[in-house]
Amino acid sequence: MITALAGGVGAARMLGGLLAEVPADRITAVVNTGDDLVLHGLHISPDLDTVMYTLAGAINPDTGWGLAGESWRVMESLRRLGGVTWFNLGDQDLATHCYRTQRLAEGASLTEVTAELYAAFGVGIRALPVTDRPLRTRLRLLDGPEVAFQEYFVHLHHDVPVSAVRFEVGPDTGPGPAVLDALADGELVVVCPSNPVVSIGPILAVPGVPEALAARRPDIVAVSPIVAGAALKGPADRLLAELGFEPSVVGVARWYAPWVGTLVIDRADAGLAAAVEAEGVRCVVTDTVMATPERAAGLARAVLGARG
Amino acid sequence: MITALAGGVGAARMLGGLLAEVPADRITAVVNTGDDLVLHGLHISPDLDTVMYTLAGAINPDTGWGLAGESWRVMESLRRLGGVTWFNLGDQDLATHCYRTQRLAEGASLTEVTAELYAAFGVGIRALPVTDRPLRTRLRLLDGPEVAFQEYFVHLHHDVPVSAVRFEVGPDTGPGPAVLDALADGELVVVCPSNPVVSIGPILAVPGVPEALAARRPDIVAVSPIVAGAALKGPADRLLAELGFEPSVVGVARWYAPWVGTLVIDRADAGLAAAVEAEGVRCVVTDTVMATPERAAGLARAVLGARG
Repeated sequence: MITALAGGVGAARMLGGLLAEVPADRITAVVNTGDDLVLHGLHISPDLDTVMYTLAGAINPDTGWGLAGESWRVMESLRRLGGVTWFNLGDQDLATHCYRTQRLAEGASLTEVTAELYAAFGVGIRALPVTDRPLRTRLRLLDGPEVAFQEYFVHLHHDVPVSAVRFEVGPDTGPGPAVLDALADGELVVVCPSNPVVSIGPILAVPGVPEALAARRPDIVAVSPIVAGAALKGPADRLLAELGFEPSVVGVARWYAPWVGTLVIDRADAGLAAAVEAEGVRCVVTDTVMATPERAAGLARAVLGARG
Repeated sequence: MITALAGGVGAARMLGGLLAEVPADRITAVVNTGDDLVLHGLHISPDLDTVMYTLAGAINPDTGWGLAGESWRVMESLRRLGGVTWFNLGDQDLATHCYRTQRLAEGASLTEVTAELYAAFGVGIRALPVTDRPLRTRLRLLDGPEVAFQEYFVHLHHDVPVSAVRFEVGPDTGPGPAVLDALADGELVVVCPSNPVVSIGPILAVPGVPEALAARRPDIVAVSPIVAGAALKGPADRLLAELGFEPSVVGVARWYAPWVGTLVIDRADAGLAAAVEAEGVRCVVTDTVMATPERAAGLARAVLGARG
């Protein structure tokens, strides 16, 4: 059994690579839900959906989110009505959110609904929302208010400076029903190349998860989402810098050191391997940029063989 | 000022007729919200929307509900996912529900959102939800459970027998902010040819409304939705019978007598005019079947001149 901690696009590609190497029924992804939002009354789970659409081969390859061949009838009408349209929702994608919202209203848990949706999309891995309870990533803008993650990421195009990040949990927020078992039972726990702060961070904010991960440290292999001092996609590098971390593989190693045994970095950062190891984290150097499915599978092979 | 009590299709046509005779800014419609439902997390107000789409000239003329030229991308995808699809929602129509739901979540009242939507659709009359608070029509099936109105009307195709109707209101349910003034100020109060039980009934279930109507009895003119012992559309006749009312203009007169001064009936029922008046309600006979906009305008003229 392989268990992976997953955010959105980078995690989806990494999981695609693992699927080329490991049978689907041996892979469990524990997925970030800190990005989730309710908009138009619809419960939207961006990371769960990006992983699902990608593994179903249905993702829009141009954007990395949403569905290929999507239409935008609802959004076009909503724009004419003067509604909220900064979070773009395609018509087919909306059906996913309608399904999820209705099932939640009927009393199903997010874990149950996720299993139903993945089955409907023909995705064979098991995806577990890290929690079925509220978990919300909130960012304090520099000299500004605190905003929800998607407000920052999509509405503000993540191009405003941030001074702090906070993960809002409720008093009853705990890991989803199978999460701790997945973390305990995975032969290997893979930390996908997702944003350490806003994708992996919320997973660690769920009470019980950090302890479960710390107990597996030797078997945890993380892939750095930072290559040559920059994030491949999204705001990881700038966010890390704004929050006082060094936007490099060394910064990632320092951030992950309490619970990650091995960090996989790109050949472009080979010169920093010693500095990574100086943080107390084993370092494996390989090609980490998943430009093609073949390269994603190659990275997966490296990760599967990376444990100390 | 003309104030109308309105349900769905029949009311929409009657209001279209009134609009041909009276400036839009002199017409207020108090609209039933007992049919409202939350599905997929979306707040759907079928009667408010049927009136809006009809008066905007955007209604689907074949069905009498939904928008003309509609597409069904979301529903098609939702069907593939195994979601709830018995309540068919077109893509453009969904935008209306997304807009309403988001604005309600932002704290706007249903009255405010309705004004925004009617303005966006270019509809000049003032439409007032009878209440901004919960109001739900529930039907007890014969030898069966109690179900929500749309469950009966759409999911069960209103072809199951009903033993009772109930209008669920909350402890804080009262008329919308402008409703009582509209009932007091209307020179004439028109009861559109809507289902007396399930369209006009919920309006009467809002505390304060029956008293306000009773005070205006001489100025209230109702149009019978029953013609020649049958409803023109929907389950009015059978429902009336199942609930112990006579499915005829006489039954309508008896039901409305406490607060309606004048009942307008179709020429097909001219022979029952005396029986209507025996219920203590003035009777006016005219053509009431609004097969064309011209006939709707003709009916409106008759209604405007019908007071005693």
